[in-house]
Amino acid sequence: MSAPQTPTATFRAIDVIRKKRDGGELSSYEIESLVNAYTRGDIPDYQVSAWLMAVVLRGMTRGETAALTDAMLRSGEVLDLSSLPAKKVDKHSTGGVGDKTSLVLAPLVAAAGVAVPMISGRGLGHTGGTLDKLEAIPGFNVNLPVAEFRRVLETCVCAMIGQTAEIAPADRKLYALRDVTGTVESPYLICASIMSKKLAEGIDALVLDVKTGSGAFMKSERDAAFLADLMVETGERMGKQVVALITDMDQPLGCMIGNALEVVEAVQILRGEGPEDLRQLCLELAGWMLHLGGVAATVAEGKTESEKLISSGKALERFRQMVELQGGEPRAIDDTKKLPQAQHSMILSSPKGGYLASLQCEHFGTACVILGGGRERKEDSVDPAVGIVLHKKVGDAVSAGEPLATIYYNAENKALRARQLLEQSYEISESPEREKRPLIHRVIGKPGEKN
Amino acid sequence: MSAPQTPTATFRAIDVIRKKRDGGELSSYEIESLVNAYTRGDIPDYQVSAWLMAVVLRGMTRGETAALTDAMLRSGEVLDLSSLPAKKVDKHSTGGVGDKTSLVLAPLVAAAGVAVPMISGRGLGHTGGTLDKLEAIPGFNVNLPVAEFRRVLETCVCAMIGQTAEIAPADRKLYALRDVTGTVESPYLICASIMSKKLAEGIDALVLDVKTGSGAFMKSERDAAFLADLMVETGERMGKQVVALITDMDQPLGCMIGNALEVVEAVQILRGEGPEDLRQLCLELAGWMLHLGGVAATVAEGKTESEKLISSGKALERFRQMVELQGGEPRAIDDTKKLPQAQHSMILSSPKGGYLASLQCEHFGTACVILGGGRERKEDSVDPAVGIVLHKKVGDAVSAGEPLATIYYNAENKALRARQLLEQSYEISESPEREKRPLIHRVIGKPGEKN
Repeated sequence: MSAPQTPTATFRAIDVIRKKRDGGELSSYEIESLVNAYTRGDIPDYQVSAWLMAVVLRGMTRGETAALTDAMLRSGEVLDLSSLPAKKVDKHSTGGVGDKTSLVLAPLVAAAGVAVPMISGRGLGHTGGTLDKLEAIPGFNVNLPVAEFRRVLETCVCAMIGQTAEIAPADRKLYALRDVTGTVESPYLICASIMSKKLAEGIDALVLDVKTGSGAFMKSERDAAFLADLMVETGERMGKQVVALITDMDQPLGCMIGNALEVVEAVQILRGEGPEDLRQLCLELAGWMLHLGGVAATVAEGKTESEKLISSGKALERFRQMVELQGGEPRAIDDTKKLPQAQHSMILSSPKGGYLASLQCEHFGTACVILGGGRERKEDSVDPAVGIVLHKKVGDAVSAGEPLATIYYNAENKALRARQLLEQSYEISESPEREKRPLIHRVIGKPGEKN
Repeated sequence: MSAPQTPTATFRAIDVIRKKRDGGELSSYEIESLVNAYTRGDIPDYQVSAWLMAVVLRGMTRGETAALTDAMLRSGEVLDLSSLPAKKVDKHSTGGVGDKTSLVLAPLVAAAGVAVPMISGRGLGHTGGTLDKLEAIPGFNVNLPVAEFRRVLETCVCAMIGQTAEIAPADRKLYALRDVTGTVESPYLICASIMSKKLAEGIDALVLDVKTGSGAFMKSERDAAFLADLMVETGERMGKQVVALITDMDQPLGCMIGNALEVVEAVQILRGEGPEDLRQLCLELAGWMLHLGGVAATVAEGKTESEKLISSGKALERFRQMVELQGGEPRAIDDTKKLPQAQHSMILSSPKGGYLASLQCEHFGTACVILGGGRERKEDSVDPAVGIVLHKKVGDAVSAGEPLATIYYNAENKALRARQLLEQSYEISESPEREKRPLIHRVIGKPGEKN
């Protein structure tokens, strides 16, 4: 095997690999050359995977991270949404269990006059994906071409689609390679992957929801804060307003897990109902989006405005409109019983009385995957109807035999496997929890102050 | 891209990559599974290159290094030379400039009754290769099949060939990948590569010549000693007697560099002539080989015996016999003018008087490659006739205009490039060198004591 040559005589992949291996700082030119040559197919997977492993173990400077993000962003099309008069603001979550905030935020923020051109992903590992949730709505099309995406956006100020072939192709190719070479777990590579895709949306500002806790990819708050800080600085270096909220994912968000079930709960929030933790997080994120979108002077004002848009029904109406524009069945929003329903259900009861001390949050996501609500392999299809509804959350009192959760399923063997996992996921203590974890751990970045 | 599956359900390459990435210690089973699956083609280059980079940056324990060596060794045929009554001992050098000791040692040690089944390599980077030197002898065939190798060995007790397809195929495949992914420079991988090939020769003992200095791969003595210690322990774990000599490569060994020229100098040593440093190193290594081969009670005794075999002409006669048995022209040994001769020569003179303080040793190897005596690319052919003869070595007095070296060449443009490089490679000082570097820096391992 001999090292393939790239057309640029001065760039050799092997030199870039060696430099990073030895802990050197790569120039923007070196990073851009590597990304471009790989995207074109001019350098092979085996060289890039060695480089990726060197990045995982040696790290990157802020400058290198920004250069990598920029090269990946510019590997494809960057949407030009300057024809839309409104400011464009998006939100991105690093992934959790029961996190359906995107479904609430896009219409809510759009109803306030801030454009939300949201490009989302599918479920990954134990975490759910916005596209899978949207597809639980009969007829909803997440695969709009860019022209159609723009049309929906112009009409209802928000639109939600999947990544297109034109957006950051370098990320798609690099991600597939990282997935099979043990090089996913690097804050620098995660940052570049997220930020390159989000900044390709042509947005003005970005609100990041970085999860921490047993259901998050970043289990420790320290790791979550490191990634958040990296993404905020990378966004700022590229001229965008970025804020990151470190939020709790030590238990599922809200009470419903599963694609159709999460649409139900998102609709509840848009109706002014639903669980308090989910409602609070949606308002906090919406407050920031409205503030950065220039329609609220402060985050608090943005939250108040968001509450009004919910109680007036305007946010729900905007969701209904978006669903209809993207081919979905709007009556499934009016009557969520029209969403896919599982054929069977099974109750998980508490083996003893006491207080719910903790939940193994990741297990709830995994249980949903086992039920068929997520993918064990990339090519698996997803069952929109299955899922889990929590009746108790951390801190709640519970008596022996009382239902902890209901499992909604279509295949009994899968339900039994999921139940077995969930039975091991509850810790019930005799006394109430001493200290409650906050919903928002901290806020990183002060984009409002830089206006 | 999805992770290819291996037939063994319990082994997944991705898990082994992640474990090493996170600094874990791999089990022998994991290492063996990875090596075997890669050799069979069941796991792709891009997974193995990521794993190799993790090994480069995380290192390996002694146990892992031995397991890797063992797996690579057993990926192919292990020669069974038990039908030969003599003990089998080989020598391996980590590579240097002007190092023609193998050509002296194989016949010298065989003349003492110790079998030397030597499998060597070609030139690599700036260092020469034994096979290229042997092929400077008209007709000499280094590509003997195993049966023929055995026949030569039975007849004259030594034989010298190149790596066959049957010997350690895992190493060949891994080395090709390391070469293009910046993963050559790891003592653990270097150790496994060397030891797996050498132990596949079916030897009882091994003498390692680990070079240190400006012409060696390991520039610092510390790195050389680390690698030496690793190889000695790995050999011992596999039940072999191994000793490593850390020897000087801060200037070329002997005075001649280039394939035919190095045959000339090896013949000089076998005739009891030639430069003192080369003669001393050959005697030291031969002393150890005779000692480990069980024909000398001590290394000193082995050296004395070796000197006798040289002065009696028996060592030279053995070389002549081996050359003839392997298809080479024995008259080229009797009269080295029958070896390939360069058409032109050019003298490099000293710009000033003084003492030769140092030589950039690696440059001399590179200059020989430039002349055509080595390969810039793997597929290049080698010109056996070209090379460099040194007239001065470190510590020697020199007057202005006196010849420092003669360049033997066939293409003037190449000679001019080589001369330009060599002109920058001499440091001439006004006073004699304060401290001379020793020829043998240290000896690692005490295999004799374990008998």
